[in-house]
Amino acid sequence: MDLYSVIGRRRDVRCEFTGGPADPSVLQRILEAAHAAPSVGLTQPWDFVLIDDPGLKERFAEHVAGERDRFAASLSPDRAQTFSHIKIEGIRESSLSVVVTYDPTRGAPAVLGRYTIADAGLYSTCLAIENLWLAATAEGWGVGWVSFYREPFLSGLVGLPPAVRPVAWLCVGPVTHLEEVPDLERAGWRARRPLAEAVHRNGWDRPSAD
Amino acid sequence: MDLYSVIGRRRDVRCEFTGGPADPSVLQRILEAAHAAPSVGLTQPWDFVLIDDPGLKERFAEHVAGERDRFAASLSPDRAQTFSHIKIEGIRESSLSVVVTYDPTRGAPAVLGRYTIADAGLYSTCLAIENLWLAATAEGWGVGWVSFYREPFLSGLVGLPPAVRPVAWLCVGPVTHLEEVPDLERAGWRARRPLAEAVHRNGWDRPSAD
Repeated sequence: MDLYSVIGRRRDVRCEFTGGPADPSVLQRILEAAHAAPSVGLTQPWDFVLIDDPGLKERFAEHVAGERDRFAASLSPDRAQTFSHIKIEGIRESSLSVVVTYDPTRGAPAVLGRYTIADAGLYSTCLAIENLWLAATAEGWGVGWVSFYREPFLSGLVGLPPAVRPVAWLCVGPVTHLEEVPDLERAGWRARRPLAEAVHRNGWDRPSAD
Repeated sequence: MDLYSVIGRRRDVRCEFTGGPADPSVLQRILEAAHAAPSVGLTQPWDFVLIDDPGLKERFAEHVAGERDRFAASLSPDRAQTFSHIKIEGIRESSLSVVVTYDPTRGAPAVLGRYTIADAGLYSTCLAIENLWLAATAEGWGVGWVSFYREPFLSGLVGLPPAVRPVAWLCVGPVTHLEEVPDLERAGWRARRPLAEAVHRNGWDRPSAD
């Protein structure tokens, strides 16, 4: 599928997972796409923990539900009302989940390009996640990034070594369709920002002439 | 161009920039692709500062050269010898640069999905960078991420507001070609890791059966 079509179709999926079989050859192509991402010093500091164990998914879903409740309690009544209609994850419904992690020890200590910016390896891991997301979209699958969790809980759940940090829990798998408008915009949570507001030229205070 | 072709062709470019004109309509498509990335709570916390002022580029290039020297001095003699042949940036040669920033105040305080993970907005900014990178590749342009800089220096150079953090300096523009093998692998700095080593199933210590 054409890159721009994929970028335009990609959504953060919560509601549209079919739970149908996850074709291993599709999964392999998606993981290869992620693994082809750029990385600082060519460290490829990511790992992918595939989760299809129902018990693990259930324990994570329960943890996320608790964090959702805590967030809801922090909101004003108006925002809490809007939030109450928003589904924030598809952990049980999606065919599988992929925990993406970052290992700062890979290639260390002298990581070319991470000398001045400690977070550069974390950035690389996110580039791999976007490749994974786009590849899944091209394959007719969906991806939903769940971020209502505490990192130590997830590290314990999947048994990460102490140095390794969880970066994302991604719900992944076939979907019935992809929505055209992001869920949060349809639910009235937040509207998208015009690109022109985000573009500056030769300094923050000088907007682009384009 | 097909997504998988783009992902396979994409390189981190230092040497192949032509410095030729940066077609504004191409640049617009690339920025639109970046801006279509997913973001935590639909905050779209990124900004793009386009840099084509030769004076700004020169000051940044001089700063980067200093940081390169400091990194080189930290290496063992063997590694320093390998590193001495590696070009780490194409700041002067590329048609333009794009500084990508992260604004944690956008949509704050109650950012849906950033309640438990403070870095989630930073992650979103990286997803936009990967979209930009892939779109540039599809357009026959190249992107080179420069990370040999100190964040306060870059913030000062482009006049970022105090809350806004620079995430990347990207050299961007037309290229003569893209190499098939990453520069760092060709230079003997580091080889790529097999994907199979990065895939686990239902826990870190249990490798995937696939």
